[in-house]
Amino acid sequence: MPQAVVHQHTFANGLTLLAERMEHVRSAALNFLVPAGCAHDPPDQLGIASVISDLITRGAGPRNSRELTLALDTLGLDRDESVGSMHIRFWGATLARNLPAALEIYADILRRPHLPKEEIDAVKALALQDLQSLEDEPRQKVLVELRQRHYPPPLGQDRRGSVASIQGLTIRKIRNQYQRLFSPKGTILSVAGNIDWEPLRNQVGRLFGDWKGDEESALQFGAQPGKRTHIAKDTTQTQIALAYDSVPIGNADYYVAMAAVNVLSGGMSARLFTEVREKRGLCYAIWASYQTFKDRASVLCYAGTTNERAQETLDVTLGELRRLADGIEPEEVERIQAGLKSALIMQEESTSARAGTLASDWYYLGRVRSFDEIEAAINALAPETIVRHLHRCPPRNFTVVTLGPKPLTVPV
Amino acid sequence: MPQAVVHQHTFANGLTLLAERMEHVRSAALNFLVPAGCAHDPPDQLGIASVISDLITRGAGPRNSRELTLALDTLGLDRDESVGSMHIRFWGATLARNLPAALEIYADILRRPHLPKEEIDAVKALALQDLQSLEDEPRQKVLVELRQRHYPPPLGQDRRGSVASIQGLTIRKIRNQYQRLFSPKGTILSVAGNIDWEPLRNQVGRLFGDWKGDEESALQFGAQPGKRTHIAKDTTQTQIALAYDSVPIGNADYYVAMAAVNVLSGGMSARLFTEVREKRGLCYAIWASYQTFKDRASVLCYAGTTNERAQETLDVTLGELRRLADGIEPEEVERIQAGLKSALIMQEESTSARAGTLASDWYYLGRVRSFDEIEAAINALAPETIVRHLHRCPPRNFTVVTLGPKPLTVPV
Repeated sequence: MPQAVVHQHTFANGLTLLAERMEHVRSAALNFLVPAGCAHDPPDQLGIASVISDLITRGAGPRNSRELTLALDTLGLDRDESVGSMHIRFWGATLARNLPAALEIYADILRRPHLPKEEIDAVKALALQDLQSLEDEPRQKVLVELRQRHYPPPLGQDRRGSVASIQGLTIRKIRNQYQRLFSPKGTILSVAGNIDWEPLRNQVGRLFGDWKGDEESALQFGAQPGKRTHIAKDTTQTQIALAYDSVPIGNADYYVAMAAVNVLSGGMSARLFTEVREKRGLCYAIWASYQTFKDRASVLCYAGTTNERAQETLDVTLGELRRLADGIEPEEVERIQAGLKSALIMQEESTSARAGTLASDWYYLGRVRSFDEIEAAINALAPETIVRHLHRCPPRNFTVVTLGPKPLTVPV
Repeated sequence: MPQAVVHQHTFANGLTLLAERMEHVRSAALNFLVPAGCAHDPPDQLGIASVISDLITRGAGPRNSRELTLALDTLGLDRDESVGSMHIRFWGATLARNLPAALEIYADILRRPHLPKEEIDAVKALALQDLQSLEDEPRQKVLVELRQRHYPPPLGQDRRGSVASIQGLTIRKIRNQYQRLFSPKGTILSVAGNIDWEPLRNQVGRLFGDWKGDEESALQFGAQPGKRTHIAKDTTQTQIALAYDSVPIGNADYYVAMAAVNVLSGGMSARLFTEVREKRGLCYAIWASYQTFKDRASVLCYAGTTNERAQETLDVTLGELRRLADGIEPEEVERIQAGLKSALIMQEESTSARAGTLASDWYYLGRVRSFDEIEAAINALAPETIVRHLHRCPPRNFTVVTLGPKPLTVPV
């Protein structure tokens, strides 16, 4: 398989276009990252990014709400709008031949949304329900609280906002926030699939080249809330979530840090799965995962277990985290390398996965990593280098959130 | 893109091998369907299929539990074992060059599992936790109850079983059930990716050709439980689930029945999404989906909403279901055709999706449908044929399950 060519162009107004041609497929995926994620929600307008992401497709350019969704559906577009901390993401995938028509419509959505006043009650009602449903979903709830405790505000803000702030949203506030954040500066459009670069760049230039907008607004960090809490709830199971700091993507230690997380979780012979789930039967669901921002990163762990065995589960999990720096076996590194390489190759075969990676590489690194670069980094992993990283950056200073009938004891 | 060639061979012992060569990829996916799903769980051993699916990878052939999972992980295999009504499914995907080594290990798992007595306590503890966690997940709970009410037992049985039956499982019962159901008769192995047919068929013949086993056991249907129930629970939201009969895959009406479900759900301009969610803001999550068995099929609908607006949500949803047969617009059919064709082409680009479809087509139809056949059926969809189907098979005799603080009124 030949090395894929990645094309890149940043227009004068700041919009970056990335594209990878995959000639053996018939589909194409597109991915817009607009720097308007929920970390930008003002403290009295929490949830506004979510409301914008819903309202923004309810009519744009020449089409009303009904006409717009029907037009996108009639292009066979599988699509989704989602709100992350830093970005609102617009994702879509369809036949490559329908991509130009889809881009025309997205130019309307991003640049000429109606943000119609008459739909705001329905949109706010949905946002409130999304927030309310969290109370019936303890697994989600504990992770939302974990992020709020682990990151300084506004980084850990949840997209769902709060009841009071959603109720207080007006069409004026929504349009102001749209105006302030939807801008070509910092917006990334990535495309992967059976596309031709020149016509694509020309079309995007025509659709977005004269888009104007403000500079990206920088986040002001507030004081970190306390790192420990228990949410008392009369549930059948106890939910445990914990987090500790790691290094962000782009750091020299990034690949060894990822490997350390994979020693814990990822693959059924990983330590948390083996020690906590398989051997002791302590919990059905347990995992650790890596989350990065530009300037910081964390490892988040989750376990759901019986109320009776919750303390034991927390103790064993923390024990595994602390034991990491004691040593890693060559066979563990070998299985991690195989898993990462296999995942890398499968990602190369999916237009959606590729479009997502192009955009996130550009956002975090300002460039797109090649397959060879990543493969070389995976090949270079070794027990010693992972352990050395763990001595520099050991799992410690845990943020711990539990949810259930009874609080647990967190050893210092 | 040339039409893919599908290879098929049924060995003398009843095992069917299906394969599709996809030469532009480097990965391959495998998919075993073993006719040992939870509908085969004896009434006093509910949950036994789930327990088998966990225990069966804890050592097999020459490898103990640890060696087995490590060997699979070291092949870079992303894998999953899951329990459906009719089958236990073993799925895996990795580099095509690692597929032969993975198949060697799966032959051990399916034919020579240790089913070790010393691991049974951990496995039962996990099964009990999986069951228990359902109490904290009202969305899942209402759908489990819906299937139990809508299908005659044992078809609607849930894989999680019951506390008493899991506690009563012994290693002898587990090994007996394994012996009875794990058999080449009715087992399907499908593979898609960068593979060569001849060596694959030879290897599978060598690994499984001398596997012996009983005939598939037929299910005995019991009496259907009542079609309506309310689960009283002090939740923030009310969960609504309903079901009605449709026609199974293979029926002459199959494609028009699928299209009718797509008028309701699938695409953001679909009726349930538009009428219940977008216009009225009644619920954040709402969907309808089609589920088929060999001899029967259903449409399942779900909505989660506020307690205050639950009755209105149920009424509007039932109204949309009843209104279906009144007429369908050409533009609705056009968007359904675009969506189905786009999904069809994307499926052709994924080794995992193709492996899954090969096996399910073979199970339901005894043959694999070609791309052209499905595309022709999609092209032939028209408002009249969908409406005629809805007159023959209208949404009615609803099974309705609700969960929340207060029961709802279901109009006759």
